[in-house]
Amino acid sequence: MPTVTMIGGGQLARMTHQAAIALGQCLRVLAASPGDPAAMVSADVVLGSHENIDDLRRAARGATAFTFDHEGVPLTHLHALEAEGVQVRPPSKALHYAQDKLAMRLRLAELGLPVPDFADLGGADRNAARERLTEFGQDHDWAVVLKAVRGGYDGRGVWLTETRDEALAVFDENFGNGAELIVEQKVPMRRELSALVARSPFGQGAAWPVVETVQRNGQCAVVLAPAPGLDEALAQQAQEMSLRLASELGVVGVMAMELFETVDGHLVVNELAMRPHNSGHWTMDGAVTSQFEQHLRAVLDYPLGDTSPRAPVTVMANILGAEQAPEMSMDERLHHLCARMPEAKVHLYGKGERPDRKIGHVNIVGAVDQGVEDVRERAERAAHWMSRAEWTDGWDPHS
Amino acid sequence: MPTVTMIGGGQLARMTHQAAIALGQCLRVLAASPGDPAAMVSADVVLGSHENIDDLRRAARGATAFTFDHEGVPLTHLHALEAEGVQVRPPSKALHYAQDKLAMRLRLAELGLPVPDFADLGGADRNAARERLTEFGQDHDWAVVLKAVRGGYDGRGVWLTETRDEALAVFDENFGNGAELIVEQKVPMRRELSALVARSPFGQGAAWPVVETVQRNGQCAVVLAPAPGLDEALAQQAQEMSLRLASELGVVGVMAMELFETVDGHLVVNELAMRPHNSGHWTMDGAVTSQFEQHLRAVLDYPLGDTSPRAPVTVMANILGAEQAPEMSMDERLHHLCARMPEAKVHLYGKGERPDRKIGHVNIVGAVDQGVEDVRERAERAAHWMSRAEWTDGWDPHS
Repeated sequence: MPTVTMIGGGQLARMTHQAAIALGQCLRVLAASPGDPAAMVSADVVLGSHENIDDLRRAARGATAFTFDHEGVPLTHLHALEAEGVQVRPPSKALHYAQDKLAMRLRLAELGLPVPDFADLGGADRNAARERLTEFGQDHDWAVVLKAVRGGYDGRGVWLTETRDEALAVFDENFGNGAELIVEQKVPMRRELSALVARSPFGQGAAWPVVETVQRNGQCAVVLAPAPGLDEALAQQAQEMSLRLASELGVVGVMAMELFETVDGHLVVNELAMRPHNSGHWTMDGAVTSQFEQHLRAVLDYPLGDTSPRAPVTVMANILGAEQAPEMSMDERLHHLCARMPEAKVHLYGKGERPDRKIGHVNIVGAVDQGVEDVRERAERAAHWMSRAEWTDGWDPHS
Repeated sequence: MPTVTMIGGGQLARMTHQAAIALGQCLRVLAASPGDPAAMVSADVVLGSHENIDDLRRAARGATAFTFDHEGVPLTHLHALEAEGVQVRPPSKALHYAQDKLAMRLRLAELGLPVPDFADLGGADRNAARERLTEFGQDHDWAVVLKAVRGGYDGRGVWLTETRDEALAVFDENFGNGAELIVEQKVPMRRELSALVARSPFGQGAAWPVVETVQRNGQCAVVLAPAPGLDEALAQQAQEMSLRLASELGVVGVMAMELFETVDGHLVVNELAMRPHNSGHWTMDGAVTSQFEQHLRAVLDYPLGDTSPRAPVTVMANILGAEQAPEMSMDERLHHLCARMPEAKVHLYGKGERPDRKIGHVNIVGAVDQGVEDVRERAERAAHWMSRAEWTDGWDPHS
């Protein structure tokens, strides 16, 4: 059977390895440390850095496909590997748009896909850039978001500001200080959605149901699958946009298109990720084919699997590291959770507990007669318990 | 998180490792070779023999629980490990009955559970044993089965004979030749069933729906979950017998009780296995909690998971090595299967292809409106394709 190399030893690689086992494979991971989530469970670990071309070459040797659990590999290295015949999937020409928010915005606009208003704050001329920010801010009543063009994730590299002074302070602190910036209109939104798709080199595409993602502190906390009450035409539009973009960019593998549903019922594209994504963790228990198996199928150019949901509703809640790690061990917390919720599907990543760090997730697959509020309440209660060793009365619908 | 050691590097350990990953663990396996199915995918492999006490000790070091993917570990070694404080699960006192068919028959009879008529053909006196066989055979019109007391699996160590001469020939060939024998009445049966349960040291028990197992050439070929048309009272009786036996014997972990449904609608116990079992592979895709996750929960004394089915019917078909391995590679066969059946859940073990060897399995989870015949036809067609690289018209209901 073929070997797939995944760059990065995080939880996405860890869960991809689980899927690889069923397909008769062992995932090869390039990990920084033997204690990385995937390195702790795979028999094929290459230790090294994703920024070192020789480490990347060692990891690629003999592999049928070469893919990623994060967007951090320098494009110049990928160009070199592609020139040497490595099957980089997604290819550098596609991954570029997941690494560079300005390029992504420009390309989306060029394709006629709905994006927020934005302005490039780059260039060598600080005063000119500051002037562009001021003008953009005034045009949008200072309801703006500043973003680093590269390297942001889980809320890092994104600044929501409320006033002119705040926005200019972010600019002054970051301009020329490593981060290239853009500014975007803050979209008046009802909620956030994600349209997860997969695409194979052959050109086959497959879309899972569109989900609602609930963000807290700038990162995904909860996913409701499918997005409750989403207008069918809007859901179809989101899937079509995501599939079309994957095709236009030549994406190979899983791609998440994060979207805003605006208060007036339109869609606006927020972010792209070209790898298995937090908004797809529900598929492990809630869909016929998980995003991890699908990613492997796609990068190996296998025909794609059935993306149908297994149940009317599935809710995923992230287990986050608490401000202060509980005294009760994770093992003991899991015992208690198993006792209270025999139906909870727990996925732990083997990571140390640090505040707000994603260390696992819980999926609850609803039965036919269970409403989304009930399923969500259980998922959030379970995740909160695993984070804090405190039972809450559950999810507060007003939070 | 705790470490579980599993003795044996076969497919059961491989699939248990998949489940361990979700629970934040890495399964430690004692494997004979780095090419064993589980050794190829786990990061924690001890190479050695399950018959060598020092290898067993090395594998046990620091582990919270010590369990098995086969029944081959000598009891004397387990006694030694237990005396040294190793948490052997199931304990030797229970495992004894899975290793010794005579002890099992005697104990079942003592507990009043339904067993076929049987006679012990052991002892030093060959003529006396041959006499007991002759008498037993005459009493049952020579509709008998001879069995090796120890070491049989997948049809090995079991001889179905039709006549007096055949039965005596098996006796003459095997008596005193390593194998200790028993003889059993051949039960006039409608079909074979399996009642899979799990039990924790705390004493909690959980039962999956009773399934029908279809045997070919003495080994399990297909599993229908739940057993189609099984009388509800009979299903409940099977579950209760299995749970009661697990409790009486002090089993820890998953236990399969293989049963005959007789032509007159009664149950008779055939065999026991105290580990994840082929008749439970359907649970990986067809039940809320798979037998592999449940086995880990049980041996770690976690509360057990929900055993509800996810769908009205799930069918598992084994992928067996063909008489002659097809020219088409397994990888290419998988491509074709993915194209034809995007809903097929394939589990490959990474084993070389040898005739009738179990090298993988396919699960098809039926939708609400799909009958068992349709689901079975697809599962068998998929498995046949993966074995032979030939598409059939599907399952022959008369085979």
